[in-house]
Amino acid sequence: MAVVTFTTDFGTADAYAAAMKGVVLSLAPDAVLVDVSHAIPRHDVRAGALALAQSAPYFPVGSIHVAVVDPGVGGERAELVVEAQDRVFIGPDNGILSLATRAPRSAFRIENPLFRRQPCSATFHGRDVFAVAAGRIASGMPPGQAGQKSDAIVILDLAPSGGLSDGARGAVVHVDHFGNLITSFAESSEPFAFGRWRLVCGTAEVELLCARTFSDVEAGALVLYAGSSGRMEIAVRDGSAAERLAARTGSELQLWRCA
Amino acid sequence: MAVVTFTTDFGTADAYAAAMKGVVLSLAPDAVLVDVSHAIPRHDVRAGALALAQSAPYFPVGSIHVAVVDPGVGGERAELVVEAQDRVFIGPDNGILSLATRAPRSAFRIENPLFRRQPCSATFHGRDVFAVAAGRIASGMPPGQAGQKSDAIVILDLAPSGGLSDGARGAVVHVDHFGNLITSFAESSEPFAFGRWRLVCGTAEVELLCARTFSDVEAGALVLYAGSSGRMEIAVRDGSAAERLAARTGSELQLWRCA
Amino acid sequence: MAVVTFTTDFGTADAYAAAMKGVVLSLAPDAVLVDVSHAIPRHDVRAGALALAQSAPYFPVGSIHVAVVDPGVGGERAELVVEAQDRVFIGPDNGILSLATRAPRSAFRIENPLFRRQPCSATFHGRDVFAVAAGRIASGMPPGQAGQKSDAIVILDLAPSGGLSDGARGAVVHVDHFGNLITSFAESSEPFAFGRWRLVCGTAEVELLCARTFSDVEAGALVLYAGSSGRMEIAVRDGSAAERLAARTGSELQLWRCA
Repeated sequence: MAVVTFTTDFGTADAYAAAMKGVVLSLAPDAVLVDVSHAIPRHDVRAGALALAQSAPYFPVGSIHVAVVDPGVGGERAELVVEAQDRVFIGPDNGILSLATRAPRSAFRIENPLFRRQPCSATFHGRDVFAVAAGRIASGMPPGQAGQKSDAIVILDLAPSGGLSDGARGAVVHVDHFGNLITSFAESSEPFAFGRWRLVCGTAEVELLCARTFSDVEAGALVLYAGSSGRMEIAVRDGSAAERLAARTGSELQLWRCA
Repeated sequence: MAVVTFTTDFGTADAYAAAMKGVVLSLAPDAVLVDVSHAIPRHDVRAGALALAQSAPYFPVGSIHVAVVDPGVGGERAELVVEAQDRVFIGPDNGILSLATRAPRSAFRIENPLFRRQPCSATFHGRDVFAVAAGRIASGMPPGQAGQKSDAIVILDLAPSGGLSDGARGAVVHVDHFGNLITSFAESSEPFAFGRWRLVCGTAEVELLCARTFSDVEAGALVLYAGSSGRMEIAVRDGSAAERLAARTGSELQLWRCA
Repeated sequence: MAVVTFTTDFGTADAYAAAMKGVVLSLAPDAVLVDVSHAIPRHDVRAGALALAQSAPYFPVGSIHVAVVDPGVGGERAELVVEAQDRVFIGPDNGILSLATRAPRSAFRIENPLFRRQPCSATFHGRDVFAVAAGRIASGMPPGQAGQKSDAIVILDLAPSGGLSDGARGAVVHVDHFGNLITSFAESSEPFAFGRWRLVCGTAEVELLCARTFSDVEAGALVLYAGSSGRMEIAVRDGSAAERLAARTGSELQLWRCA
C-alpha cells in the first residue's frame, strides 16, 4: 500500500488537486493520499521545496511525493522521477525536488507513454504527467521505467550562511503560518549558545535570547531557538516575528553574541 | 473499496466537512475519502457544479461524488442520487449535479429512512442526508434503493456561446485560483485557430495570441488556449487575466480573428 | 483499521500537518486519516475544542482524535491520552479535549518513550508527541500504556446560560463560516418555543422568529433555530448574522418571548 503526498500552488478552491488524486486512484486504487500543501504561494518554487523537505522524511520508506509548483509548465523544463532517501519524488526539474533529495540520487525523465496521459494537456502536467507517474509507481512500476536517466538536475540555492567567528550572516528562508522566521542557519553546523544575541534584520536591530523554546521567554519577547525543521528559528512568543521585524523570505540576518 | 469525494461551500474552519466524513466512515469503513473543494464560494451552485464536472471524470468508475452547495436546505428542493457516466452523484436538486451528469442518467429521490439520519436536522443535510446516502452506497447498497425515480432534475445553464462566423460571443464561466478565465467556449466545438485575435471583455478591448499554452507567449502577455478542462481559457503568463481585464464569472466575451 | 482525525491551528501553507500524518502512517500504515480543521484561529483553544466536539461523535467507535492548539508547547502543561465516549482523544491538557470527552473518562499522561519521538523537539509536540501517541494507539497499543493516570484534566468553561423564566441569558460560543452564531443555549435543556422572540446582542436589539430552520423565514431575515450541533443558533437567511448583529465569539445574548 503506497503513500502518495501532494505539494502544489493550486489552491483548494478549484478542482485541480482533486483531479490529480483521481488520476492516482484510477491507477493505484490502494494508494493512501496525503496533502502536504496546496497553499504554496503561486510560482514560489523555494517554498514548495521547503515544504517537501520538511515533510517527506516523516513519511514511510517507499512513500511517493509529488510536488508541482511549475511556472514553466508546457515549456522546456524536464519532468522528473527522483529516487533518494529511500523515497520517490516526482515533479518538474526546476529545483522543487532538490531540497528533499540529497545525493546520492537517481533521476529519470518522464518519457514512457505509460507515465503520461493521452492526450496530454499543455497546461496541466500535474494531472497529465506527474499524477500519472505517481499512480504508475504506486501500482508497482519501478521508477527507472519512467525514461532515460537524467545526469544533472536543477538544485536550489538557499541563502548561504557565513560562519560565526565574527558574527553569523544568513537570511530568512521561510516565514511560517505563525509568523516565525525559519533561517538559513542549520542547527547542527552552527553552535548557537544559549544566552543573549544581537540581531540585525533589515533596518531592525534588537537583542534577543537564544533559548530552548519560546516558552522560555515572556509573552511578546523575541527568541532564537533550534526549530523543528533542523534550522534556527526566530519567533515572538504569542506574536509574529515577521511583523515585529518587518521580515520576509529573503530578508538578510546578522547575529552576534552579546559581550 | 469505494472512493467518495466531497464538494461543498462549508469552508475548513468549522467541523462540518469532517462530520460528513465521519458519517461515511461509520457506514463504510473501507471508503477512500477525497476532498474536491470546501472553498466553493457560499451558495455558488455553478462554481460547485463546475468543480464537480472538472474532477469526477478522473476518478475511477464506480466512484461516489457528494456535492453540497445548498442555499435551499430545509426547504422544498429534492435530494438526489444520480447515476451517470458509470459513477454516482449525490446532492440537492438545484443544478449542482447537472454539469457532471450528462444524459443518460437515472435519478432517485433520497426517501428511504436507511439513507437519512434519525433524527435528521433541518439545517445540515450534508451530514444527515447526503453523507448517509454516500455511506450506504459506498457500503454496497444500490443507488436505486434511495427512493422513487425522479423524472426531471434541475439543469444548470452555462452561458451560451454564439458561433464564430461573425465573431464568437460567450462569457467567463469561472475564474480560477491563478486568475485564469475559463470561458463558455468548448474546445471541441469551436475551431479557434492559432494566431492573433481581438477580445472585448467589459470595457477592455485587447489583442491576444491564440496558442498552445501560456509558455508560448512572453511573461505578462495575454494568451487564449485550449484549457485542461476542455474549454478555451484566457490567461496572463505569470500574471492574472482576471485582474488585467477586470473580469469575473459572468463577464461577457467577444472574440474575433484579426484580419 | 483505525481512523485518526486532526484538529490544529497550524494552517495549510506549511508542512506541519503533513509531518504529523507521516508520523502516524509510519507507525500505523493502515490508519485512515481525516482532517477536522487546520484553520482553527491561532491559539484559540475553545474553537478547537468545539470543532472536536462537533465532529468526533460522528466518527466510528474506536476512532482516534488528535487536537493540537497548544500555546503552551514546551512549557509545563501535561500531554494527554483520554478515553471517553468509546473513542480516544489526544492533545495538550489545556481544555481542548474537554468538550468532546464528557465523564466518565480515563486520562493518561504521555510519558512512555515509545509514545514520543527521540529526540523530541521543544516546539513541535504535534509531530513529536501527539502524532506518535496516535500512531502507537492506531497500531494497537492500549491508551493506558501511554503513562500514569491523570486525576484531573483542564475543563473548558463555555459561557453559562441562565434559565428562561425571566428571559434567557447566554453568549455566542462560535461564529461559523457562514456567519451563523452558535449559542450557549443547549437545544435539549431549553424549550425555545416557535414564534417571535426579542434579542439583545451588544448594542443591537431586534425581534426574530424562532423556527425550524432558516428556510422558514424570508431571505435577509434573522432566525433562531435548533442547530445541527445540538445548540440554538441565530442566522440571517442568505446572509451573515455576525455582520448584522456585529457579534463575535463571547458576545452576550439576552432572549425573551414576545408578549
